[in-house]
Amino acid sequence: MSEHRCVCPGSFDPVTNGHVDVVRRATALFDEVIVAVLVNSAKAGLFTLAERVEMLVASVGGLPGVRVEAVTGGLLVDYCRQAGAVAVVKGLRSGTDFAYELPMALMNRHLSGVETVFLPGDPRFEHVSSSLVKEVVGHGGDVSGLVPDTVLTRLLDRLR
Amino acid sequence: MSEHRCVCPGSFDPVTNGHVDVVRRATALFDEVIVAVLVNSAKAGLFTLAERVEMLVASVGGLPGVRVEAVTGGLLVDYCRQAGAVAVVKGLRSGTDFAYELPMALMNRHLSGVETVFLPGDPRFEHVSSSLVKEVVGHGGDVSGLVPDTVLTRLLDRLR
Amino acid sequence: MSEHRCVCPGSFDPVTNGHVDVVRRATALFDEVIVAVLVNSAKAGLFTLAERVEMLVASVGGLPGVRVEAVTGGLLVDYCRQAGAVAVVKGLRSGTDFAYELPMALMNRHLSGVETVFLPGDPRFEHVSSSLVKEVVGHGGDVSGLVPDTVLTRLLDRLR
Amino acid sequence: MSEHRCVCPGSFDPVTNGHVDVVRRATALFDEVIVAVLVNSAKAGLFTLAERVEMLVASVGGLPGVRVEAVTGGLLVDYCRQAGAVAVVKGLRSGTDFAYELPMALMNRHLSGVETVFLPGDPRFEHVSSSLVKEVVGHGGDVSGLVPDTVLTRLLDRLR
Amino acid sequence: MSEHRCVCPGSFDPVTNGHVDVVRRATALFDEVIVAVLVNSAKAGLFTLAERVEMLVASVGGLPGVRVEAVTGGLLVDYCRQAGAVAVVKGLRSGTDFAYELPMALMNRHLSGVETVFLPGDPRFEHVSSSLVKEVVGHGGDVSGLVPDTVLTRLLDRLR
Amino acid sequence: MSEHRCVCPGSFDPVTNGHVDVVRRATALFDEVIVAVLVNSAKAGLFTLAERVEMLVASVGGLPGVRVEAVTGGLLVDYCRQAGAVAVVKGLRSGTDFAYELPMALMNRHLSGVETVFLPGDPRFEHVSSSLVKEVVGHGGDVSGLVPDTVLTRLLDRLR
Repeated sequence: MSEHRCVCPGSFDPVTNGHVDVVRRATALFDEVIVAVLVNSAKAGLFTLAERVEMLVASVGGLPGVRVEAVTGGLLVDYCRQAGAVAVVKGLRSGTDFAYELPMALMNRHLSGVETVFLPGDPRFEHVSSSLVKEVVGHGGDVSGLVPDTVLTRLLDRLR
Repeated sequence: MSEHRCVCPGSFDPVTNGHVDVVRRATALFDEVIVAVLVNSAKAGLFTLAERVEMLVASVGGLPGVRVEAVTGGLLVDYCRQAGAVAVVKGLRSGTDFAYELPMALMNRHLSGVETVFLPGDPRFEHVSSSLVKEVVGHGGDVSGLVPDTVLTRLLDRLR
Repeated sequence: MSEHRCVCPGSFDPVTNGHVDVVRRATALFDEVIVAVLVNSAKAGLFTLAERVEMLVASVGGLPGVRVEAVTGGLLVDYCRQAGAVAVVKGLRSGTDFAYELPMALMNRHLSGVETVFLPGDPRFEHVSSSLVKEVVGHGGDVSGLVPDTVLTRLLDRLR
Repeated sequence: MSEHRCVCPGSFDPVTNGHVDVVRRATALFDEVIVAVLVNSAKAGLFTLAERVEMLVASVGGLPGVRVEAVTGGLLVDYCRQAGAVAVVKGLRSGTDFAYELPMALMNRHLSGVETVFLPGDPRFEHVSSSLVKEVVGHGGDVSGLVPDTVLTRLLDRLR
Repeated sequence: MSEHRCVCPGSFDPVTNGHVDVVRRATALFDEVIVAVLVNSAKAGLFTLAERVEMLVASVGGLPGVRVEAVTGGLLVDYCRQAGAVAVVKGLRSGTDFAYELPMALMNRHLSGVETVFLPGDPRFEHVSSSLVKEVVGHGGDVSGLVPDTVLTRLLDRLR
Repeated sequence: MSEHRCVCPGSFDPVTNGHVDVVRRATALFDEVIVAVLVNSAKAGLFTLAERVEMLVASVGGLPGVRVEAVTGGLLVDYCRQAGAVAVVKGLRSGTDFAYELPMALMNRHLSGVETVFLPGDPRFEHVSSSLVKEVVGHGGDVSGLVPDTVLTRLLDRLR
């Protein structure tokens, strides 16, 4: 019996309760869960990398076996191998999501042998994504219950 | 650090190399993998339950941490809980597959908290299913390389 | 301003809380909602037509503008025209559901001009279908909360 | 019996015959249909908001119970509530369309209780979208029959 | 420059105008088109194999380069090779259709090198399938325009 | 018996082994295959049009009946008609791909009568796209085996 570690990657700009749910459920499956915050060099985010990490630490940092890391360069699978992770974990909301994720999952396995495992998203969060949450707040809508409290506060500060 | 056990369920009538691939990959993610052969009371299979178990034992029984079990009644999730499994593992070939599997995955979690994790099927086996393999052999086609050797022999005995 | 009437068709063998949710939401959109119980001549149901109607009356009969009818022959769209309904209403859970429903919706419009409107299913009931509910109860699982109480009682009577 | 009002939202840059078909069909289902022209602040359109409204008024303004409005800020569902609309109506061309629309539909219901109802697009217009129409005209193709005449004239003025 | 021959397979129970459209379009792509009527040993059809062939000959037999054949045993790809066909041609209506057809297409290529090429179905026939046509006629509906005239006559004879 | 010519269009920025596979397979179906390099005026590519053509000539120029052409303006279907092509050929990886491609295929047929035929992508290349290959190389990953050797060299020159 060896230790099994997984990586939950994302831009988390910002973390939502849908992300929190996937991370929490991953802790039941793996000994350690690394939440890896990726930088998308092609587009600026609403929050800085440091802010995203802070919000994640506040939201999931207390879950057993979870740690939050910023990944600032190189391939995700190189990071996984260095971290000793056997799998990438992703939430999946629909068959269309799967078609989008599949080439990346296969490429990651091709490059490194690291598996991608998909968890069906909790239907309670089916309408919750970072981009939709930002759009709703930007237009004056209320997203309490859809993001952690610390995120709600920061969203209102930034977008109102 | 606790032991994580998963269940790979199916009718395995018969096991294919696609199944073998999913089971083998599951052993990299979990400490123990139980291959659970389910009986479909609504339709008779080509092989008996005992034959299916024998073929699985010959094909995956030697993989580390794998054991093969017949599940003859009750809910799959009740079996999972009795066996101390935290997850059901399924291969997934397409978004349509996902739409088909999703209600069962959600129901299983609703009933028991047991997760379903999906592994993308290896594209080399995208065309390999028990039913298609039986149909091809029944019409005189060659499926060597698509099923374990022991299965190939039995398919020819049964269908030619 | 004229009266707008719709039909919610199905075999309702038995009605689930997912069905109840769609009917209830349809009452906010149309002046009258006819729940039409269709007979599938190709396969016997678990419950008789009379039993299905009874369970529906108990579950949705009290909603404003709702009535329950058995449709025992002819095309659904002929029934719609006789009843003066402008639309068929269906819940939709996934893109795969839509691909399945689309040819029937187009055929119904081709034959009669009756529209089919799709309501996205409430995610809380994404795993709830008549067939899955029956299967779970048949294997000893608990579906309370997923079907109306009257249905729960009858399912236990019939399947245990 | 109360009045039922719906909103058909879009950027309508420009309106196509596919849009006209959905609006026309919505008039058979609802007492009043508000065509709501949304401003996408993230990208400039080919036509100004005023031009889009003009083309819509010319194309659907004469249909019974239809009025055209520009929505220049706030959430769509806030607009719906102020307008007393019970539903958003959208045409749907494929299961992939549905997967794209579903989170927004669920978010809108979460925020306000306003329903989204989907009408299957008429197959005659399956290839007709504002963006594809603009691309075709820009490359010298003929889209007569796919957009209202007034739109055709303006597209040629603008893109040739 | 060699001759390219394709096979359009199906059960054609009975041929519809959607099938006729695919066959007609295939004649623009290949020098010869063989319409192959397959026998499904698992279920009895409405029409006999001879009747299906007759209706096809009446419907597409006059198209340039088309011939109709009954295939009564063996694999479709063995038939293709014996007939010197390089491809199987299938109409495709949706992404879900594709997910259903893909394993068979890949299996056929694996077994024989015979390609499967997919033609998008004409949207005018998106709601037209043999099974739906039979169901509509059986319930008293009118399918003229959806099937060849000779098929319409036989359907009425058989199902009324 | 007339000559049948097809067009394989794309931006090919750069050509991958997935593209090579589709072109090679198209040569078995058509007498002549024109690989048409399209310019996307909306976004700059990694390679110039001339470089893309060079890489294609090196990769597929030697296949029987294949020629490579740059298409610098106008509609693809106008090019097809001028070139005497009866069909556009595209590889298809998933049902979601199909939903994306379908409107363009229908529009092309509407404008010109030119058919689009879809070949299921070889599963070995399911994870191979120009954009993913560029992303992997840009982050230091190895894509040998996924692109022609000449492309591999140029990618390393450009992105490292």
